[in-house]
Amino acid sequence: MSKSLKARLKAGEALLGAWCMIPGALTAEALGRAGFDWVLIDMQHGCMDYETALEMIRAVDLGGATPIVRAPWNDPGIIGRLLDAGAMGVVIPMIQTAEDARRAVEACLYPPAGRRSFGPVRVGLRDGPGYFADANDRVLVIPMIETVEALAEVDAIARTPGVDALFVGPFDLSIALGLPPGDNDGKPAFDEAIAKVSAAARAAGVATAVLSNAGVAPLRLRQGFRLVSVVTDLSALTLAARADLQTVRKTLAAGADHA
Amino acid sequence: MSKSLKARLKAGEALLGAWCMIPGALTAEALGRAGFDWVLIDMQHGCMDYETALEMIRAVDLGGATPIVRAPWNDPGIIGRLLDAGAMGVVIPMIQTAEDARRAVEACLYPPAGRRSFGPVRVGLRDGPGYFADANDRVLVIPMIETVEALAEVDAIARTPGVDALFVGPFDLSIALGLPPGDNDGKPAFDEAIAKVSAAARAAGVATAVLSNAGVAPLRLRQGFRLVSVVTDLSALTLAARADLQTVRKTLAAGADHA
Amino acid sequence: MSKSLKARLKAGEALLGAWCMIPGALTAEALGRAGFDWVLIDMQHGCMDYETALEMIRAVDLGGATPIVRAPWNDPGIIGRLLDAGAMGVVIPMIQTAEDARRAVEACLYPPAGRRSFGPVRVGLRDGPGYFADANDRVLVIPMIETVEALAEVDAIARTPGVDALFVGPFDLSIALGLPPGDNDGKPAFDEAIAKVSAAARAAGVATAVLSNAGVAPLRLRQGFRLVSVVTDLSALTLAARADLQTVRKTLAAGADHA
Amino acid sequence: MSKSLKARLKAGEALLGAWCMIPGALTAEALGRAGFDWVLIDMQHGCMDYETALEMIRAVDLGGATPIVRAPWNDPGIIGRLLDAGAMGVVIPMIQTAEDARRAVEACLYPPAGRRSFGPVRVGLRDGPGYFADANDRVLVIPMIETVEALAEVDAIARTPGVDALFVGPFDLSIALGLPPGDNDGKPAFDEAIAKVSAAARAAGVATAVLSNAGVAPLRLRQGFRLVSVVTDLSALTLAARADLQTVRKTLAAGADHA
Amino acid sequence: MSKSLKARLKAGEALLGAWCMIPGALTAEALGRAGFDWVLIDMQHGCMDYETALEMIRAVDLGGATPIVRAPWNDPGIIGRLLDAGAMGVVIPMIQTAEDARRAVEACLYPPAGRRSFGPVRVGLRDGPGYFADANDRVLVIPMIETVEALAEVDAIARTPGVDALFVGPFDLSIALGLPPGDNDGKPAFDEAIAKVSAAARAAGVATAVLSNAGVAPLRLRQGFRLVSVVTDLSALTLAARADLQTVRKTLAAGADHA
Amino acid sequence: MSKSLKARLKAGEALLGAWCMIPGALTAEALGRAGFDWVLIDMQHGCMDYETALEMIRAVDLGGATPIVRAPWNDPGIIGRLLDAGAMGVVIPMIQTAEDARRAVEACLYPPAGRRSFGPVRVGLRDGPGYFADANDRVLVIPMIETVEALAEVDAIARTPGVDALFVGPFDLSIALGLPPGDNDGKPAFDEAIAKVSAAARAAGVATAVLSNAGVAPLRLRQGFRLVSVVTDLSALTLAARADLQTVRKTLAAGADHA
Repeated sequence: MSKSLKARLKAGEALLGAWCMIPGALTAEALGRAGFDWVLIDMQHGCMDYETALEMIRAVDLGGATPIVRAPWNDPGIIGRLLDAGAMGVVIPMIQTAEDARRAVEACLYPPAGRRSFGPVRVGLRDGPGYFADANDRVLVIPMIETVEALAEVDAIARTPGVDALFVGPFDLSIALGLPPGDNDGKPAFDEAIAKVSAAARAAGVATAVLSNAGVAPLRLRQGFRLVSVVTDLSALTLAARADLQTVRKTLAAGADHA
Repeated sequence: MSKSLKARLKAGEALLGAWCMIPGALTAEALGRAGFDWVLIDMQHGCMDYETALEMIRAVDLGGATPIVRAPWNDPGIIGRLLDAGAMGVVIPMIQTAEDARRAVEACLYPPAGRRSFGPVRVGLRDGPGYFADANDRVLVIPMIETVEALAEVDAIARTPGVDALFVGPFDLSIALGLPPGDNDGKPAFDEAIAKVSAAARAAGVATAVLSNAGVAPLRLRQGFRLVSVVTDLSALTLAARADLQTVRKTLAAGADHA
Repeated sequence: MSKSLKARLKAGEALLGAWCMIPGALTAEALGRAGFDWVLIDMQHGCMDYETALEMIRAVDLGGATPIVRAPWNDPGIIGRLLDAGAMGVVIPMIQTAEDARRAVEACLYPPAGRRSFGPVRVGLRDGPGYFADANDRVLVIPMIETVEALAEVDAIARTPGVDALFVGPFDLSIALGLPPGDNDGKPAFDEAIAKVSAAARAAGVATAVLSNAGVAPLRLRQGFRLVSVVTDLSALTLAARADLQTVRKTLAAGADHA
Repeated sequence: MSKSLKARLKAGEALLGAWCMIPGALTAEALGRAGFDWVLIDMQHGCMDYETALEMIRAVDLGGATPIVRAPWNDPGIIGRLLDAGAMGVVIPMIQTAEDARRAVEACLYPPAGRRSFGPVRVGLRDGPGYFADANDRVLVIPMIETVEALAEVDAIARTPGVDALFVGPFDLSIALGLPPGDNDGKPAFDEAIAKVSAAARAAGVATAVLSNAGVAPLRLRQGFRLVSVVTDLSALTLAARADLQTVRKTLAAGADHA
Repeated sequence: MSKSLKARLKAGEALLGAWCMIPGALTAEALGRAGFDWVLIDMQHGCMDYETALEMIRAVDLGGATPIVRAPWNDPGIIGRLLDAGAMGVVIPMIQTAEDARRAVEACLYPPAGRRSFGPVRVGLRDGPGYFADANDRVLVIPMIETVEALAEVDAIARTPGVDALFVGPFDLSIALGLPPGDNDGKPAFDEAIAKVSAAARAAGVATAVLSNAGVAPLRLRQGFRLVSVVTDLSALTLAARADLQTVRKTLAAGADHA
Repeated sequence: MSKSLKARLKAGEALLGAWCMIPGALTAEALGRAGFDWVLIDMQHGCMDYETALEMIRAVDLGGATPIVRAPWNDPGIIGRLLDAGAMGVVIPMIQTAEDARRAVEACLYPPAGRRSFGPVRVGLRDGPGYFADANDRVLVIPMIETVEALAEVDAIARTPGVDALFVGPFDLSIALGLPPGDNDGKPAFDEAIAKVSAAARAAGVATAVLSNAGVAPLRLRQGFRLVSVVTDLSALTLAARADLQTVRKTLAAGADHA
């Protein structure tokens, strides 16, 4: 088995990812083969059920990228199922307190570190009987910091044993700060929040992670983020389609030459 | 009901489309809302079953674009089902002869013009009891010209009553001509084939249609094609994702500045 | 095993059915338990793929009704698969000639009577290893008579060995006769066509079958039809919903009393 | 954008709805086009998963009705996902206390009114970038009152900021009161409960909503309910099918005339 | 209706079961027809969503076995939905305390014994209007004992009104005890845990249940377990396939005789 | 890329396979990882639609086995789609004549060797842009010999350019010969048929293939078959489950010792 995403993260590598909102394995396979270090299947805001998420994890595995997921909520039932499917990391939304973070860790790790239940049905096919012994060392636990409450508790969340990285969701964080959803770099409240999360992570010896895009990712990497998504499937498709259409419509408008 | 795609085609409009290989309604809805005149659901080389194709037709309807389909084969069973689902045009692959074209027309049109069976279950929900009376005037029948045999018979195919347009598949046509799959503009065999199809269509008073992309579409429009696809979903997504990743990887490689 | 639908048909029973256009097992189970002799899953004009059709057959089995299907086309591939799923009868659309009928029979029956391929994977679960020995005696082969060509050949079709009943599709038959789609009783062309099919069936010793509804079914039974559908799922639901809404809207309009 | 369901409710309109238990978009589209003001997709007692619910919301959108949902439980994960899919209202079962209601509101509304997480992937396709600004003004939050505990706290629940209507579930409410499941009008405990909920709603300036049918709906409208369902898909289909079958069976039994 | 699984359990019968991890009705139907007393659909570690679980329950019903489920978590939303689908028993994972057990009972039983919400949409098709009256007498509530905390509280859990059996998960229990996942019979910690659960069950007058296999099941039956699974679908298939392959590979290796 | 299945077959290797009737990727992944040289997804008698078949091909790819398929029929539409999905071989049922075989070859191979249409959407993800150049050298075309007509024409079928192996279906072949479905070794008609197919294959320089099981496979290998299935998923599961149940039931019956 090659070096795990977790090991690479701990070694300080910058790890670039793709974000899946589209349900279905075809797009997941395309992204899994495109050279990303990780591909995230988003069960919070993406449109897939569990069976589809499992197909997508298979498709990402095929391409050699590491499949990770965002859980719909800090719920041990679905988190366990996603890990059984083969997710090697879980982003958990709307963590507010260290206690929330502790419960997220419990859901992700086997005893004694946590309370994950044993039954690695699909991931056992992939990784064999050795999966259990290594799982806790290979699974990433990544709470999201996206509310005022979480910012206030960010140090305690970062120091929660088992937490591997803090995930900044720029959209929700911005809304929480009274800003429009999106990247609000340059606005003090936003920049301070980023800095605060980064400092808390650094102090606790954990990484930072963020949803991003090709335009902003370089900045995020300079800010020290180590898990950085650079493309989101539906946005990328929509933007490309609109741009291509626009290009051809302009040609059409420009010339009577096409008659 | 607004002017149908068929009416617009007959009026000589250049109609730009998007091409769906990805199974699922989310991407179809995104493309259906992106401003294209038509969105094609490809059941020949795309990855969807009929139930999914039906969901995709609904999703395209939502955005106001006209849903059309490519049938997996010149088979009246599936062609009828796709029309019942609400497709307003059918591209039929691997037509070789005028007899093939006649059978395609039969599959697409109600008697007496054809032999389509009545049962517009889903499209009846959309278009109401008036659907039957207008269907033959609104449904496009579009045989593909993509083999040596078809080129030899292209005039007869074009003149087959009920045929609305000839569809050029540049990939199969190129292979048939001994060229690599793709757009082979500039190579005489390819250019002559395009010219021959165009001439046959013009002589018969039908349109020409083609699978294309934003780069080649302007040329196709100048060549007189009136149904021109400018984007294919999976390619667009893959290209965009790879480009975004490349951009950020270069930034990473360029600077130690992100540490 | 109780008496098969085929045996009951041969005994002259009038057998009432429900017609499924809606994909999914919940509605099929509801109809399978509602007291019908048979429930037909329509893969020609209904909206289900094969996997869903199989679920629906299971659901009909649960209620004790006999599952039959309409194939999308006279195609031995899908006909065989539907029989493997447990269908006990196949309605085959758009039969034009005795040769068409012969091929339909071949697709439905094991050698030496036909050419059905062996592999009763799901129906073998239901009926056990004895299925093979009895299948030809229990499966109904029911060609549709719905075109001018079929009317002209109806005697030969009826006499094709292996044919159990002739199915009249009133909608397509009407269109073929230049009438609006629907039941056109009272119009001579329609009445004569019904009479002609009935006579051919009687002469050949086979039954007649028809898509119908509660209003027309009594007439069809008097005309001698023995497999008569009395309800179609989507129509029934839509009509009931519109009627209920109308009722309440009228109450609302009638009274200021609800304020 | 036309006037939202929420705006119409606040204006005092009586709004009639259909209730979906059947998974799948075909029936949802039929109901969405039938003239109802709203169509509810029931993820508590209906049989659909999230992906299917999303298809159903699309299908309802197509017909111009407003899609709302019943969540399986007062769980912010699934509530957020259903809103992201395009639901314009959420009925939340088994609310017992004002604190429960407050959490339901939090799950439905963006900050600062609530804690809904941002990621309107599918609804963003439908409503565009303006969705976020208006969402809190357009989404209905509708707790169910169906237990003894809820009745005792009904005033506090009704006054919870963000609550738009109180939903009476006659079945659970009856069971809670020791009555058989169903509409128990005329039995004092039931009538008093209805009156109590209505009074609490009126006092708090919110509406009342109820699961009903064409027979009882006029009474409910007179009682002041403003969101009233008048048909439930599976019941309507089953009743219609059984009635049609009964009608024809009677004809059969009545006459030897059908031989 | 034949004697329920619950009645047979209360009568002291040893009831053998099959365990489903594979999503899909075909394997569930095969197991449902194979002679097991019960077939469990595992939504905790198995790979199915709710819609698939419902199809599997139908398939088990077809064969005459009793369908039961393992819920993904002690969550009343999904537990209620699984019961509405027709599950006649619910195994609830990771119960730690009597309070957890009480909430599991509440989720499974109608008032006044519990708080289950009424809406038996699919099970109502199967069992008719009488379902409600009998449901509490027929549904099994089975908490899992698989953690150190649960062992410590096992007496209180067993005595929780409404609990019918205690389920031992040998894998998680072993991990909780610091043993490798699996059956650890002969190791004192494991044997004592089994004995402790058994004693608590006996004292409370409830049964014991366990995930097992053909090798260990006889021991479990001697230990007094009354609900004992003897096969797990995916393991059985994988083991059989590997064994068959091994057999033939050996033949190949043994002889040049096959050339 | 490692040596293809076709190359290994041409090199004379005995290649053992597993046969999939169960729809779904979990069982396909289990078999794909179990050490078989190939895993066949059976769309003739198995229970999957195309989308599921595609998921299964992905799952087989994951394990390193070679995915091949049986088409539902000799239909170029579905054959092309299965190849686009990544199948590296196609078994085509009910081939009767050399002309049938020629059409099967045409469906499987790109021009000039055949008429396969270009559009390797999913397999292009897997194998990259080089797929087209090598496809004809890597895809196996395998007609089935299972009727009296095919036996009569077996030499011509075997010599059809592009055919790689002849597949014997023992069930249909037996029925065609008037024998019960199954392996009828020892009965002259069956043995002669096997010998005739083998001789025709040998003479034409193509291989022989067969559906088998662990008991019969050694004989088939001795008879010279080179593609031999040794396990069928649903049978293996059912047999194992019944055997395990029987074992434990016997224990139960044997002893009062388990009380």
